[in-house]
Amino acid sequence: MALAEETPEKHCWVCFATERDDHSAEWVSPCRCKGCTKWIHQACLQRWLDEKQKGNSGGSVSCPQCGTQYHIVFPKMGPVVYFLQQVDRALSRISPFAAVGVVVGTVYWSAVTYGAVTVMQVVGHKKGLYVMERADPLFLLMGLPTIPVVLVLGKMIRWEDYLVRLWQRYSYKRKLPPGSSRYLPRVPVDGPNSGDHLSVSRTLCGALIFPSIASLVGRLLFRRTSSNLQRTILGGIAFVLIKGVLKVYFKQQQYVSQANRQILNYPERSGGGQTDGSDDTEDSGNE
Amino acid sequence: MALAEETPEKHCWVCFATERDDHSAEWVSPCRCKGCTKWIHQACLQRWLDEKQKGNSGGSVSCPQCGTQYHIVFPKMGPVVYFLQQVDRALSRISPFAAVGVVVGTVYWSAVTYGAVTVMQVVGHKKGLYVMERADPLFLLMGLPTIPVVLVLGKMIRWEDYLVRLWQRYSYKRKLPPGSSRYLPRVPVDGPNSGDHLSVSRTLCGALIFPSIASLVGRLLFRRTSSNLQRTILGGIAFVLIKGVLKVYFKQQQYVSQANRQILNYPERSGGGQTDGSDDTEDSGNE
Repeated sequence: MALAEETPEKHCWVCFATERDDHSAEWVSPCRCKGCTKWIHQACLQRWLDEKQKGNSGGSVSCPQCGTQYHIVFPKMGPVVYFLQQVDRALSRISPFAAVGVVVGTVYWSAVTYGAVTVMQVVGHKKGLYVMERADPLFLLMGLPTIPVVLVLGKMIRWEDYLVRLWQRYSYKRKLPPGSSRYLPRVPVDGPNSGDHLSVSRTLCGALIFPSIASLVGRLLFRRTSSNLQRTILGGIAFVLIKGVLKVYFKQQQYVSQANRQILNYPERSGGGQTDGSDDTEDSGNE
Repeated sequence: MALAEETPEKHCWVCFATERDDHSAEWVSPCRCKGCTKWIHQACLQRWLDEKQKGNSGGSVSCPQCGTQYHIVFPKMGPVVYFLQQVDRALSRISPFAAVGVVVGTVYWSAVTYGAVTVMQVVGHKKGLYVMERADPLFLLMGLPTIPVVLVLGKMIRWEDYLVRLWQRYSYKRKLPPGSSRYLPRVPVDGPNSGDHLSVSRTLCGALIFPSIASLVGRLLFRRTSSNLQRTILGGIAFVLIKGVLKVYFKQQQYVSQANRQILNYPERSGGGQTDGSDDTEDSGNE
């Protein structure tokens, strides 16, 4: 076995053709590999790269054997193409921020509009327009969008939960009959605080509809008040108080209901009705 | 071993206490289980249920042994609590739809505003206001938001890609020298069509800024046109044409560049420079 040391015949590790098979083919040795994986046809390597890059023409590819990254060169492009490429890249880089700006602008503009509508609703249509026309535009552009923000933030203050907790603490101290025969009513693990999680959609909608409700309640309950602003404010306060009382009562009742839940005995006979949990000796050991 | 058939002593499968340990404890047999897992303290089962439900007080729990679902009863609540519960549930069910409505309303209102601003930009501020004030409000509320929609849809028509493909088909037919010595330039797998994917943010921003650009180009190129509308339309057409030509040229150049990429030989000596790919016999077999 005489090894030809000078120039061992090239053969392509993709198509297995040798130099003799195609004299015109272009050869390349793109990596550190020696021996039988040293040489490859330029065209075969191009096809193989296309497979590897899978549509990402800018991706770098390395030799699977020695790990050398292939050095791919592209023909030089003119200054016009270079300039267009830079513009294209800049636009691609800017556009996400611009899109965020569009979204923020949309939300902001809707908040401004909502604020203006709310002002007209609270102080009356004509007076609202008059007030806003005379106000500083900068003040309006800053002040109007804060109206929905303040409404949402205000809606997030859950003072009813605080009252429910206070009530529970008070009622526990009272309800401790000494030497009671039964087990104490249990303390539910999901108290009223964690019970209804803060729903984003409900908070948002509740906050945004609040001025309309306040105006409505004001018109229903405080017809004698002539000032639109006063009437709406009174209506809002009345609505918040009524709703708060109902909510505290409801949560307390839910808590009591949870605390006094019972697990029933399994009805052993299919014809038999539900047996009460306290009836604990029934059907025991009838097998 | 005499098995007491009548009443085998109860013992709780949670705390292992028997009836003798605590006579006052309440017992329950909540499932189909017999024998040593038949009985459990009501209080122990309550604690175990709390563990199983983990805060979801409405969830159903089954016996881990026999799979029977426990029958949990709550004390009856008054009609007021029932009513409040129904209201609470209805609000929870409605609020996601209402939130979607808020989002849709926000987008719609911004589209209306954008449409109005665009009309004023295209036909001039005063004339735009005059036209919109005299138009049917319903027509405005329907027509103005379609302006941004039409702009975005128009931006999504990629006529430049079509032109690039036409150009490539034409240039391939021309560039086929018979019996060329080299391999044909390869056809890049990611042609100009799939090259830049349709970016949502870029389409949106490009569409929304188009009227401003059209107005600007119109003012720069068609100063003599007195009509605001005509000038902006001419500016828009000019901008689209110029941009289209540049884009087609850029994409074609990118395609040519991709088609003519070369993978270079690996420089064998550390001091040696990059060897050209066509120089395919250099350094071969010098080991």
